[in-house]
Amino acid sequence: MSEVHAVRRGLLRDRCAAAGSAAALVSRPANVRYLAGGAPPGAVLLLGPGEDVLLCPRAPAGEPGHGRPDEALRIVPPVAPGVDPVVAAADLAAASGAGSLAVEEHDLTVVRHRAIGRTAPRLRLADLGRLVEQHRIVKDEEEIGCLRIAAEITDQALGELLESILVGRTERHLALELERRLVDHGADGPAFATSVATGPHAGQARHLPSDRRVEEGDFLSVRLGADYHGYRCQIGRTFVIGTAPAEWQIELYDLVFAAQRAGREALAPGAGYRDVDHAARHPLDAAGYGESLPPRTGHGVGLEIEEDPQLAPTAMGKLDACVPVTVGPGVHLPGRGGVRIDDTLVVRPEADGGPELLTMTTKELLAL
Amino acid sequence: MSEVHAVRRGLLRDRCAAAGSAAALVSRPANVRYLAGGAPPGAVLLLGPGEDVLLCPRAPAGEPGHGRPDEALRIVPPVAPGVDPVVAAADLAAASGAGSLAVEEHDLTVVRHRAIGRTAPRLRLADLGRLVEQHRIVKDEEEIGCLRIAAEITDQALGELLESILVGRTERHLALELERRLVDHGADGPAFATSVATGPHAGQARHLPSDRRVEEGDFLSVRLGADYHGYRCQIGRTFVIGTAPAEWQIELYDLVFAAQRAGREALAPGAGYRDVDHAARHPLDAAGYGESLPPRTGHGVGLEIEEDPQLAPTAMGKLDACVPVTVGPGVHLPGRGGVRIDDTLVVRPEADGGPELLTMTTKELLAL
Repeated sequence: MSEVHAVRRGLLRDRCAAAGSAAALVSRPANVRYLAGGAPPGAVLLLGPGEDVLLCPRAPAGEPGHGRPDEALRIVPPVAPGVDPVVAAADLAAASGAGSLAVEEHDLTVVRHRAIGRTAPRLRLADLGRLVEQHRIVKDEEEIGCLRIAAEITDQALGELLESILVGRTERHLALELERRLVDHGADGPAFATSVATGPHAGQARHLPSDRRVEEGDFLSVRLGADYHGYRCQIGRTFVIGTAPAEWQIELYDLVFAAQRAGREALAPGAGYRDVDHAARHPLDAAGYGESLPPRTGHGVGLEIEEDPQLAPTAMGKLDACVPVTVGPGVHLPGRGGVRIDDTLVVRPEADGGPELLTMTTKELLAL
Repeated sequence: MSEVHAVRRGLLRDRCAAAGSAAALVSRPANVRYLAGGAPPGAVLLLGPGEDVLLCPRAPAGEPGHGRPDEALRIVPPVAPGVDPVVAAADLAAASGAGSLAVEEHDLTVVRHRAIGRTAPRLRLADLGRLVEQHRIVKDEEEIGCLRIAAEITDQALGELLESILVGRTERHLALELERRLVDHGADGPAFATSVATGPHAGQARHLPSDRRVEEGDFLSVRLGADYHGYRCQIGRTFVIGTAPAEWQIELYDLVFAAQRAGREALAPGAGYRDVDHAARHPLDAAGYGESLPPRTGHGVGLEIEEDPQLAPTAMGKLDACVPVTVGPGVHLPGRGGVRIDDTLVVRPEADGGPELLTMTTKELLAL
């Protein structure tokens, strides 16, 4: 893997040099991990002007879940207690003769940015912007391999839950059980806080598990995902509890399913972000649910569970091959509940068989 | 509770007005919660110049774990999609005739701060600094009541684990089980990622659970805490696995125990932060472990698991009554393991019986 990270850093260095900065300071945790291979919490990465240096607030050791730093990196562990690693990095950049330093202004607080300026007053500070995030959008096959394993683990955890008895159990307990099963199957942890929503909660975009118990006749919607070697996927499914769904439940389910399928089918290299969103949004809009829809119907996944691109009505840009995204529209009827169906897929050209579905759990309306 | 939050906001407004700002924008999540009573993720609070307004990225509803906003607040839910709530707040402050706005420069990124300036160019931006954090240090009895319940829950979860069979189980599973038990006993969730460290990992300050299994003869150190209504406590204990601890284990345990007791006994209104740290650090230093000690031996707890004060060698300031802190020194011997003992206590005057211990689990060296 170490070579991969060196190539990524080289690419970033070239882009920075072209923009007039001999050195760059990367502080956003997922960006640091992308370029360093692994890093303890709080570590920052200085690229150039000399060798690349990972500055850690403490020695990077024995930290499962954070990966191992690339061996080609010089590691400064730990930075002196009480010293912010970004300040130490700026100091080092100035001492190495850098004239300017590009920093991540969308990550650094005003206070940290000012501390850098005070430490190295002769260093011209530029904005690196979201350059690393842009590089992260298209994944290589090793990254997609991690996402594929994350999705397999997620399917296994969900599949086991569906075989157990659900009526009478609380949302909180079901969520904790799902997270335990993710870890049982090899996840480094949950990719995000597992959502389990029953009855009137079902279908809400970001419901946090409560003490409500599963009842006969409920919709039950779950959203979960595994973190495998830092890569995070997402699945969302909705079920009904009991022997037979009600008429309104079948209708709502079919509608959301059709919308989600339309979104999935719109995934292709060259498709506009907003066009994919439109494909998933339009059926729900036409059925009169436009007002209550969330601002986007999907997003990129990778080292963060929510990354670029955003699949939203005003999003600019087009999909490339090898971009993993979620497609997950949903409808929530206040007081009654609702439906969400969410998959993680990788954009692939038609010639390769079209979008690759990573989350395989059935999307039939199961009565549990 | 609503009156409490209005009083807190009034106090902050007065301090801001005295410093020349008619309006303040609070963005750090724990600070927003402290002043608003509850807030959905991403919400920010605008204090003055007119009424206080909570600006939410989406409607605050059905969100256990985030509390309910104070009813005296005007709520703007949701801010238009794609608009940063801090920008919407600055807009509102300018429209309400504020000449200056104090913002939390230690929380806002450079990009968000600049966006505020662009939206409201005539608004003079000042720094609110860590004023809300300072107000949060001394807790009222209702806050301490929440911490007391959080500690009870934590003790129950840990107590149950100690009754179960540990040999052969992985750190990861033990950590997940502890977190499930916290929720079983009424926690809103874990206060922080539970740490379970066995054998050579034991005693590390921030070990994340791995797949290592508990073995006979191991030290086992755990650190966990419950979040109850937003308030977070912390306990750390170290045990030995098997029938009888080895000589070196007993010696190391006794040393850390003595250090931790010295730290606890130093807690009193008027005691310097650094003096408490010194009390806990000195016995370990004198025994030759000075080099490897973490930079602090304790810290404040409340709406965040790590807040002011810091109990560290260079920390300035003195304890007040009703300040809850952790006291948790530890020693880790590379390759062999180590000991950490950590309690949450509330500083109380001698006349009230001295420091109030919240985390009650025994600190005897148990062989499990």
